[in-house]
Amino acid sequence: MKLGYAGMGIMGRGMAANLVRAGHDVTVWNRTTSRTDPLAAAGAKVAASPAELAAGCDITMVCVSDTPDVEEVALGDNGLSTGLGPGKLVVDHSTISASATRRLAAAVQEVGADWIDAPVSGGSEGAERGTLSIMAGGEAASLERARPYLEAYGTSITHVGPTGAGQMVKLVNQVLVVVNALAVSEALLLAQAGGLDLNATIEAVKGGGAGSWMLANRGPQVVARDWRPGFTIDLQQKDLRLVLEAADELAVPLPGTSLVFQLYRALQRRGLGGDGNHALAKALEELAGLEIGGA
Amino acid sequence: MKLGYAGMGIMGRGMAANLVRAGHDVTVWNRTTSRTDPLAAAGAKVAASPAELAAGCDITMVCVSDTPDVEEVALGDNGLSTGLGPGKLVVDHSTISASATRRLAAAVQEVGADWIDAPVSGGSEGAERGTLSIMAGGEAASLERARPYLEAYGTSITHVGPTGAGQMVKLVNQVLVVVNALAVSEALLLAQAGGLDLNATIEAVKGGGAGSWMLANRGPQVVARDWRPGFTIDLQQKDLRLVLEAADELAVPLPGTSLVFQLYRALQRRGLGGDGNHALAKALEELAGLEIGGA
Amino acid sequence: MKLGYAGMGIMGRGMAANLVRAGHDVTVWNRTTSRTDPLAAAGAKVAASPAELAAGCDITMVCVSDTPDVEEVALGDNGLSTGLGPGKLVVDHSTISASATRRLAAAVQEVGADWIDAPVSGGSEGAERGTLSIMAGGEAASLERARPYLEAYGTSITHVGPTGAGQMVKLVNQVLVVVNALAVSEALLLAQAGGLDLNATIEAVKGGGAGSWMLANRGPQVVARDWRPGFTIDLQQKDLRLVLEAADELAVPLPGTSLVFQLYRALQRRGLGGDGNHALAKALEELAGLEIGGA
Amino acid sequence: MKLGYAGMGIMGRGMAANLVRAGHDVTVWNRTTSRTDPLAAAGAKVAASPAELAAGCDITMVCVSDTPDVEEVALGDNGLSTGLGPGKLVVDHSTISASATRRLAAAVQEVGADWIDAPVSGGSEGAERGTLSIMAGGEAASLERARPYLEAYGTSITHVGPTGAGQMVKLVNQVLVVVNALAVSEALLLAQAGGLDLNATIEAVKGGGAGSWMLANRGPQVVARDWRPGFTIDLQQKDLRLVLEAADELAVPLPGTSLVFQLYRALQRRGLGGDGNHALAKALEELAGLEIGGA
Repeated sequence: MKLGYAGMGIMGRGMAANLVRAGHDVTVWNRTTSRTDPLAAAGAKVAASPAELAAGCDITMVCVSDTPDVEEVALGDNGLSTGLGPGKLVVDHSTISASATRRLAAAVQEVGADWIDAPVSGGSEGAERGTLSIMAGGEAASLERARPYLEAYGTSITHVGPTGAGQMVKLVNQVLVVVNALAVSEALLLAQAGGLDLNATIEAVKGGGAGSWMLANRGPQVVARDWRPGFTIDLQQKDLRLVLEAADELAVPLPGTSLVFQLYRALQRRGLGGDGNHALAKALEELAGLEIGGA
Repeated sequence: MKLGYAGMGIMGRGMAANLVRAGHDVTVWNRTTSRTDPLAAAGAKVAASPAELAAGCDITMVCVSDTPDVEEVALGDNGLSTGLGPGKLVVDHSTISASATRRLAAAVQEVGADWIDAPVSGGSEGAERGTLSIMAGGEAASLERARPYLEAYGTSITHVGPTGAGQMVKLVNQVLVVVNALAVSEALLLAQAGGLDLNATIEAVKGGGAGSWMLANRGPQVVARDWRPGFTIDLQQKDLRLVLEAADELAVPLPGTSLVFQLYRALQRRGLGGDGNHALAKALEELAGLEIGGA
Repeated sequence: MKLGYAGMGIMGRGMAANLVRAGHDVTVWNRTTSRTDPLAAAGAKVAASPAELAAGCDITMVCVSDTPDVEEVALGDNGLSTGLGPGKLVVDHSTISASATRRLAAAVQEVGADWIDAPVSGGSEGAERGTLSIMAGGEAASLERARPYLEAYGTSITHVGPTGAGQMVKLVNQVLVVVNALAVSEALLLAQAGGLDLNATIEAVKGGGAGSWMLANRGPQVVARDWRPGFTIDLQQKDLRLVLEAADELAVPLPGTSLVFQLYRALQRRGLGGDGNHALAKALEELAGLEIGGA
Repeated sequence: MKLGYAGMGIMGRGMAANLVRAGHDVTVWNRTTSRTDPLAAAGAKVAASPAELAAGCDITMVCVSDTPDVEEVALGDNGLSTGLGPGKLVVDHSTISASATRRLAAAVQEVGADWIDAPVSGGSEGAERGTLSIMAGGEAASLERARPYLEAYGTSITHVGPTGAGQMVKLVNQVLVVVNALAVSEALLLAQAGGLDLNATIEAVKGGGAGSWMLANRGPQVVARDWRPGFTIDLQQKDLRLVLEAADELAVPLPGTSLVFQLYRALQRRGLGGDGNHALAKALEELAGLEIGGA
């Protein structure tokens, strides 16, 4: 089975490397060509365009930034669709809108191919270590066809419903991520003001009802003031825009999520968009004039 | 070693039962006497007053509702302090204010006894199953003296600092609990509006960056509209009042926590204070006119 | 001077009627033709298209719903631009995005005409009574040319800056309107719960530091549960989307405005989008399970 | 008619000065005696204690900081109650809790005197210029007895209900004040980011549906970065604590008010508690890293 991967960004390159490492026949493509070099060095072939990629592969994975990027890669000049045909499959790991996803799936189905929307969570560490969670929408049979290869980088691969459901689940995932990050930020700010040993505090509570991935993994980073990203504020905001657009479309109030969006936006204005999403804590620090953790 | 337990409420009776089950010599007391019957049936002795309890025991545990209740049990007529003396120890599992805790500890230290503030998390299930997290403040040596007995109901027992630190860590814990509950509520509301299979959605995301105890344990309860409490909204609000008072005292902004307090308050007005804290979701449902889950 | 008016909606028809009443030579146009009947009966001429309207008039006012509507009226087939030429002026009373406004102004300036963005506030009463506030962006000289006619329906006409500034001021206006509405909602909910005479309360405070147009004009309506719109929730939300997009683009946090957007969205889901913007109070009522005012 | 005034703080001294200026027979008292000097210089007598003040006067006004201060002045050693008797009247201009007010009124009624709760709004300017709004609770006949004297400093004197109603109306007033201040802060932040002329913006919108006392009076101060208080953040927070306690007691959600409380608290932590309540704008500035107005 020949596998393609389009998009060698912070997430895509880790996933593609895991495919190579697992011994699969992998071809990669990226708009900025130099980004494919590490993969080529590891044994991947390089395609000159998405069309060439799709033409030469049975299953093509995609992970690019935003809805227009996926549309360009899939349907643009020399896009995937030019190279797709009956029996071929696209697995889109990008986080984009559910409605755009339904349009893209319909377009590739016209030429007999299929489309799985399969956004991931777990950040760049997850992509590198192969421990991503993958939430997939579309035909169950198509997902099953891809599953053996997705297992190269995903430890949890769940079929969550029809086309677009993967994207919607990802938005739900992002609501949880950022509001949990708000919880961690408020908790550590209170702990700091209350004179507690912050790491001891995290240890004491993380195993109980207060526990979360965000607390266990990002809490100690906040305490160490290590703002290196698993997932950047800029990317988080891109996803939160999709969340808030979906919430507007579906008419559901998300007051906590919406508050976090405002706080991240203020951090972006300060030039902190490249920090990890746990740097949400800095927004509360700015407000309070109080620094969490440190030496 | 003779152990006492004052307070046979939803939490205390589970903890005391675990002490008995572990084979310890246990005496219990409760203001409403009938509540001690199940413990007596299980083999515990019953004291007629906190004073008698403290006089007859080496270590006395306490778990009652609020600051004034602990003050009454400890320092009131026939209170623990009357029966305390050198070498005796009080371990207070109630969640009360850190400053009141410091006053109580000072009072019992005057008669040569010691005081550990040791609030817990894990809800009534945790108390019953003996899987509580215990966050303890005070002298490390006193905690070590109590630790073998606390292990009857606590799987995580952490010394977090001097007197009052246990209470402060508990407040930090509650911030995490309720803002994580907000995350779950907003996420499931969006999932419902987006037409997703809610249990599949929880399964797909709970293992990744979106994961939390609240999502894994209370998410499915919300979907099933099972509002039985691990921890009731009424008790949660009592703790949140302590959180917000501490935040006011320490001058830190907690916008998310504060929003949740408002939402729970509205639910209490509707007579839902006896529901579990995951019923926070109902506040968003009321706003949106949309019901999560169900048959 | 020949005046044109495109858009006979809830706002436009009142403004156009005031132009006729003031004795001006007025021609009107509306997509749904029947809406021009009352104006024709009052003495206005009726044009068959925006192009015909612009060709026959020196100054053409526009008031339609949203950015795409203005673009269609101005630049679509048989749009205003076809009939515009040197010396002609468009005054756009619609609330639309500032950046789209700059593109529209550039387009009409290419044919020698000019464009004033002149959104209004004051609601349908203001349009009918001729007491609108008009905030205008663009060339000061062009505004002065239009001013004598704008005075037929505007009591306050302010030049606020270059092209687009009128729209931006309108967004600022909407922030004030909706957060003031939140103030009124919370205040009356507290007053109701506190057992106060609501109208006496409004009377007691409206003349001091708590005073606002919203309190004085919509407060008594809330108390009487009269939800008839000056300005509907649906229109308010359209404007708030522009506000939140601008805030996102400019990276400023608007937590209060953003909260109100969520609350209005929930009311729209309940089918209350046609109520006046003071019905924001209902969102808090839903939460609290408490009704303000009434018999 | 002999008038007494207890409390020569920022509000009380202005009110008392207006009584003297109106030609009334005025005696004053203050805990820190030197504060009575300007009033003595203006012609007022000075009492040695609240008891002496009440004994020598028919009507005694009070304006001190908080509930415990009023309780001390009224019921403490040498308090007003010692000097009160049949036919005498206390008018309390302090902002304190409604329930404490009911207890105080009952206490003075036992000796045949009466109590009017009469908190004010309008700030220190209003006290100096005699343009306060007074919201009074208690017996209408008692208020009528005091009215001719209150007119020395109040332009709006409204009987709003039984004992305690004045205090409750004042809390409602404070909700309006602070949420209107949030409106002004968000509006000016957006205006600043949008490149508008801020004073022109205020002029353009203040006469319409966006208008408020806060915008007209404090908006230009924010633009000029003039943070001198009409009413300080510290005093505002004291009142907001009463508001939030009442809201908790009455179980009504006040999300906007609660957000403002958090923002003010953060400003207090930064040492800005002496700034005027319009300095709420600084909290949003801190978040956004963007300064409103200035040279």
